[in-house]
Amino acid sequence: MKGMFVKAVVFKGPFEVAVEQVDDPRIEQPTDAVIRITTANICGSDLHPYEGRVDFDAGMVLGHENMGIVEEIGPGVDRIHVGDRVSVPFNLACGSCRNCNDGWTSACLRANPSGQPGAGFGYPMMGPYWGGQAELLRVPWADFNLLELPAGNQWENDFTLLSDAFPTGYHGTELAKVTPGKTVAIFGAGPVGLLAAMSANVRGASQTFVVDHQLDRLALAERIGATAINAADGDPVEMIMDATDGFGVDCGVEAVGYQAHDATGQEHPALVLDNLVAVVRATGSIGVVGVYEPEDPGASTDSAKEGRYAFDFGTAFTKGLSLGTGQCPVKKYNRYLRDLIIREQAKPSIIVSHEVGLEQAPEAYARFDKRENGYTKVLLHPNAA
Amino acid sequence: MKGMFVKAVVFKGPFEVAVEQVDDPRIEQPTDAVIRITTANICGSDLHPYEGRVDFDAGMVLGHENMGIVEEIGPGVDRIHVGDRVSVPFNLACGSCRNCNDGWTSACLRANPSGQPGAGFGYPMMGPYWGGQAELLRVPWADFNLLELPAGNQWENDFTLLSDAFPTGYHGTELAKVTPGKTVAIFGAGPVGLLAAMSANVRGASQTFVVDHQLDRLALAERIGATAINAADGDPVEMIMDATDGFGVDCGVEAVGYQAHDATGQEHPALVLDNLVAVVRATGSIGVVGVYEPEDPGASTDSAKEGRYAFDFGTAFTKGLSLGTGQCPVKKYNRYLRDLIIREQAKPSIIVSHEVGLEQAPEAYARFDKRENGYTKVLLHPNAA
Amino acid sequence: MKGMFVKAVVFKGPFEVAVEQVDDPRIEQPTDAVIRITTANICGSDLHPYEGRVDFDAGMVLGHENMGIVEEIGPGVDRIHVGDRVSVPFNLACGSCRNCNDGWTSACLRANPSGQPGAGFGYPMMGPYWGGQAELLRVPWADFNLLELPAGNQWENDFTLLSDAFPTGYHGTELAKVTPGKTVAIFGAGPVGLLAAMSANVRGASQTFVVDHQLDRLALAERIGATAINAADGDPVEMIMDATDGFGVDCGVEAVGYQAHDATGQEHPALVLDNLVAVVRATGSIGVVGVYEPEDPGASTDSAKEGRYAFDFGTAFTKGLSLGTGQCPVKKYNRYLRDLIIREQAKPSIIVSHEVGLEQAPEAYARFDKRENGYTKVLLHPNAA
Amino acid sequence: MKGMFVKAVVFKGPFEVAVEQVDDPRIEQPTDAVIRITTANICGSDLHPYEGRVDFDAGMVLGHENMGIVEEIGPGVDRIHVGDRVSVPFNLACGSCRNCNDGWTSACLRANPSGQPGAGFGYPMMGPYWGGQAELLRVPWADFNLLELPAGNQWENDFTLLSDAFPTGYHGTELAKVTPGKTVAIFGAGPVGLLAAMSANVRGASQTFVVDHQLDRLALAERIGATAINAADGDPVEMIMDATDGFGVDCGVEAVGYQAHDATGQEHPALVLDNLVAVVRATGSIGVVGVYEPEDPGASTDSAKEGRYAFDFGTAFTKGLSLGTGQCPVKKYNRYLRDLIIREQAKPSIIVSHEVGLEQAPEAYARFDKRENGYTKVLLHPNAA
Repeated sequence: MKGMFVKAVVFKGPFEVAVEQVDDPRIEQPTDAVIRITTANICGSDLHPYEGRVDFDAGMVLGHENMGIVEEIGPGVDRIHVGDRVSVPFNLACGSCRNCNDGWTSACLRANPSGQPGAGFGYPMMGPYWGGQAELLRVPWADFNLLELPAGNQWENDFTLLSDAFPTGYHGTELAKVTPGKTVAIFGAGPVGLLAAMSANVRGASQTFVVDHQLDRLALAERIGATAINAADGDPVEMIMDATDGFGVDCGVEAVGYQAHDATGQEHPALVLDNLVAVVRATGSIGVVGVYEPEDPGASTDSAKEGRYAFDFGTAFTKGLSLGTGQCPVKKYNRYLRDLIIREQAKPSIIVSHEVGLEQAPEAYARFDKRENGYTKVLLHPNAA
Repeated sequence: MKGMFVKAVVFKGPFEVAVEQVDDPRIEQPTDAVIRITTANICGSDLHPYEGRVDFDAGMVLGHENMGIVEEIGPGVDRIHVGDRVSVPFNLACGSCRNCNDGWTSACLRANPSGQPGAGFGYPMMGPYWGGQAELLRVPWADFNLLELPAGNQWENDFTLLSDAFPTGYHGTELAKVTPGKTVAIFGAGPVGLLAAMSANVRGASQTFVVDHQLDRLALAERIGATAINAADGDPVEMIMDATDGFGVDCGVEAVGYQAHDATGQEHPALVLDNLVAVVRATGSIGVVGVYEPEDPGASTDSAKEGRYAFDFGTAFTKGLSLGTGQCPVKKYNRYLRDLIIREQAKPSIIVSHEVGLEQAPEAYARFDKRENGYTKVLLHPNAA
Repeated sequence: MKGMFVKAVVFKGPFEVAVEQVDDPRIEQPTDAVIRITTANICGSDLHPYEGRVDFDAGMVLGHENMGIVEEIGPGVDRIHVGDRVSVPFNLACGSCRNCNDGWTSACLRANPSGQPGAGFGYPMMGPYWGGQAELLRVPWADFNLLELPAGNQWENDFTLLSDAFPTGYHGTELAKVTPGKTVAIFGAGPVGLLAAMSANVRGASQTFVVDHQLDRLALAERIGATAINAADGDPVEMIMDATDGFGVDCGVEAVGYQAHDATGQEHPALVLDNLVAVVRATGSIGVVGVYEPEDPGASTDSAKEGRYAFDFGTAFTKGLSLGTGQCPVKKYNRYLRDLIIREQAKPSIIVSHEVGLEQAPEAYARFDKRENGYTKVLLHPNAA
Repeated sequence: MKGMFVKAVVFKGPFEVAVEQVDDPRIEQPTDAVIRITTANICGSDLHPYEGRVDFDAGMVLGHENMGIVEEIGPGVDRIHVGDRVSVPFNLACGSCRNCNDGWTSACLRANPSGQPGAGFGYPMMGPYWGGQAELLRVPWADFNLLELPAGNQWENDFTLLSDAFPTGYHGTELAKVTPGKTVAIFGAGPVGLLAAMSANVRGASQTFVVDHQLDRLALAERIGATAINAADGDPVEMIMDATDGFGVDCGVEAVGYQAHDATGQEHPALVLDNLVAVVRATGSIGVVGVYEPEDPGASTDSAKEGRYAFDFGTAFTKGLSLGTGQCPVKKYNRYLRDLIIREQAKPSIIVSHEVGLEQAPEAYARFDKRENGYTKVLLHPNAA
């Protein structure tokens, strides 16, 4: 395999990705593994660099939602074996720093050469690591990072959501402290919001509302068992208040992020946070997994340009709300979510809308970026026949 | 006792309180008790109505930090007895609604006739209940609300801090998730901040920083065992970063509130939140017990006027911080804090600076409001000889 | 109503209950309510006094699983109203002692005149309170104890399980630390075991095993979504080990109690605990809601006679297991379980096998005691037309 | 270094250890490190094989409480560097199995070739790994297992207790759910019991009782701030009940184990568990870190011989107690306890009674085994000048 090239989705610049030959990933450290990718998903956050909203180096390979078969391991790998089918968490973590020890692989203190906590594959600010929208992927600290899966190809489209969207949705419900019998409002019916709804079911919520204004996604929310709230039809806070006898919900999940926009497409960076503060009852909790940025030159308000989001914090305090935020530490959840899939208690693949080969990636990016109707989740199969 | 009058501290209007005769509090409901006040404290938040920063009805009796001896009980009171020495939590709670059941007496759903969660004594927006800066105080749902204390007058100045400042400081450390070995930064060395520092000790923090720019209060912080950070000497974030090898602290406590001001006296409503987001390490937690208001016409920025505090939320998200907020549910902690006092493990009276009779209340309000040097905590003894 | 008599199921002595006229329950304290019973269930633990296995005073009215309509309230009741439909937790609690404050209504320090923690209705050692297998029931501290239900008679057979069996089963899964994705083994397919299985589903277990040797009950377990393990077919530990690749389960629930017996009917008081220690994986947790007694003169071993159950504690230690035990504090869960019923996320009435009028109670006791096939759960409707 | 020999304390048979030359530990796997031992402690549990109470292979090197300087690392070690000063947890763990991921390094699923969860150094049943009562020690999975310490030799006698006794005592208080204001009873004033008392202080206990009948150890308990209860003076349960107004304590810690004996020296394997069940209040928690064995041919009762300890489980159930058990997962706590030492909040070296060179180990074993007065904790310094 040495000295060869592999095909990969390469970032060229805003609105331009290409499938090109790149140097093949190989074992660089004794604890590395190389994975032959069977499925790599396009994530909504891949659109941030794609749209030029955040800087990204041209030439980088994209893709942080990866799974596949172990192709090669370094001599320091003793748990994972060649031939194992594995899921690769989007967080790349060392497994031995203080944060990894505490379960916060999302804030690994060693993997990112920049010194910032948290590293990942093929993503801006997350270190120099290539992504997995490619035939092969190098995974450092393989024994720690890789989640083993049953051999074969059963549940492939479910398992592929274990690298990011399912645990991230689940993390939203964890931060929101969803427990049996509680009510939940989720803003955003993208993959993360929909799988947060599925996670709320798993955790025993008595009722889950999902707010969006795209009908195809709201239909998926209903199929998952949630109550769809179409924000195009009126004020979602009012609709949820009406449905809860004016009490509001116990838990809120933010699955939209800083590019929140109203039904007309106008951005309002604090809109979703304000709605959550309004709709979550006093003493309730909000989990924020939609991304907010420390700075965002393209933002629609001056304060948001510098990462200041002027939401109703005074009301949040008066209600005694708690807010949990940040990227999901995938390893904390992926094993348990895998077992729910295997034992048929959860079927996250319900959100998958498209499956294509690597060559179709540029077109898939373009159409997903336009949020064409039905483009909920696109899977790439780089090594498919 | 019926048909008599008692002396009380009455709110007349901004910057004006008076000691007057008012109708004596009496049993109105079977579950009421009437308390003869031995000590009632002036709280920093009493200065909000005093300064006219929040509206308050003229004629109301002030005081939500109360303790005393049970004078009379209604026929539905079966746990508390006449003659019992008791502490009265500042939250007034029904004991049987959903929030009270869950331990959130700070958000009782029934005690406040306005329908807003949360009620209290002698305070704006907290219902029609008179305060305890008076000879007598009526306490509804007495069996539930009152905390029994050892007979006599030992530990009076410690126990009097059980009604608000000590549990509120403790709540800050609870929301900040202080556990043994962690490091803590507390902004604000008022009574709540100082007792948050004492609480951090109780919870096993390895190091606690207290930030302020008043030297007398910083000296108290040191006596409590904390590391004083004088914000008049430079950037407190930088000083704490230097003291933690650039790592920051695990936990942050906001004990200042919306009237945060710099060393020159200029208000910056988001200053403390920004500092906390900067100084708390990735994955850390912030407890906000300093008050933020849903609206504040006197605020220094437009967004703060409507309760929007434009702090660095983008950075908070990137670091994966959690924020807990709101008033302290006193009953959740006061029994345990009482036992620490009795068994000499905590001595909160270290912060008490002045003790006066009821007649001196107006002067004490005026001097405390000017934050005269040494005015940390003023106790009123309405029934002292 | 005063001065009248009501019909009630009265304990006469071992194996003898009678439906008799007794003095009508009435308001004795200002905080009392009187409930007109719509449904009162017979509980498996009612068979302990019925069989003479524990002492019980002749003349006592039986029944601790009660619901109905509020008939009358005392002057100190301000939350509950006449005409409210309510569930009555089997624990009778004061609402203001330390244990009630901490959510441990199962160990109320004041309600039981014996001084022992914990009181209840119509049950040995739980105080002098009459049970609810009667037309009327007096409920002390009504505002605290009663759970409000939607008006009407919808979900009657579901709601009636909120007083004991459903929350007790749920408590088993709480003590066993069931969280999403975990595997669970429940020993005992009586009402509590079956509703523990339903609770494990609610909490997101990936797989739940239910062990018993009664086929009708195992069939119910399968209908609830669990995997039935018939202990008559072999060693249940081995069967569960085989089904989990030799790993065992994460969580175990003991829903049998000290009268555990093998398929031949022989009592083995430590049998279920031993099986749980064997089948729960290292670091796992066991919730014990099946009853063990401090003394049991009728026990089959000498140590069990004095409440000493010689189970494999050495192995439990080596595996690092945790054990939670004891009666369920119903109020901690019943509100949330009620909401799951209302929003159609849980249907506990699946376990109800028989509904009869009060007059049929003696026969129902006799047949239930013989565990006649199909006698899973008997409901009495004392005021049915 | 290759091909040389090192001195080590070798187990020869019951009551016989010798200091001998053994093959030098060296890097065997890429993720190994070799440590030059600065301090290795003798643990009370080393006396189990020493006394022949559990089987142990002759020729094994003893010692599971180790610290030192990194001498050499394998090519897969990237966090720890040669020259680092480190503490070695007694649990030897892979860092990547499910239990390690969940923080249960005490039950690592991969490190013990026997297939049993949990491995360690120089101890029966814990795998083939040599102990550290030697000049050098091989540590597998070094990046994961080793805790970095400040360079130099400050706090050496404190840090050496981070490998076992301090975290194990702390684990007892964690399993017993000690939180601020609670009361605690600790049975056993050996190193683990004493450091459990120190841990209870750190966690904010309002009062801690330590029970033993050795006066030197009780004196240490008092120096740590606990209330000493001399079991030679009467029934410790009664004494603690008297000191708590008959209420009992909130939390209990078992720091004695299966060889519990009364003041006359007679073994009673269930004695301490019975006392804890009696003295811990209803709804309280017991942490069992004293060792119980699955089988113990030398036990004083038939049931204890097969690992069945017939304690008052019926009373435990009636009180609703919880019991946590098992070996401490050291990594969960050692970093935080280290920081308490560095910041002078805890000084565990107070329990150290003797420091000797490696050659004195046989004598130290013999005298420690006789529990000679003053023999609380013996440290070996294998490489001391």
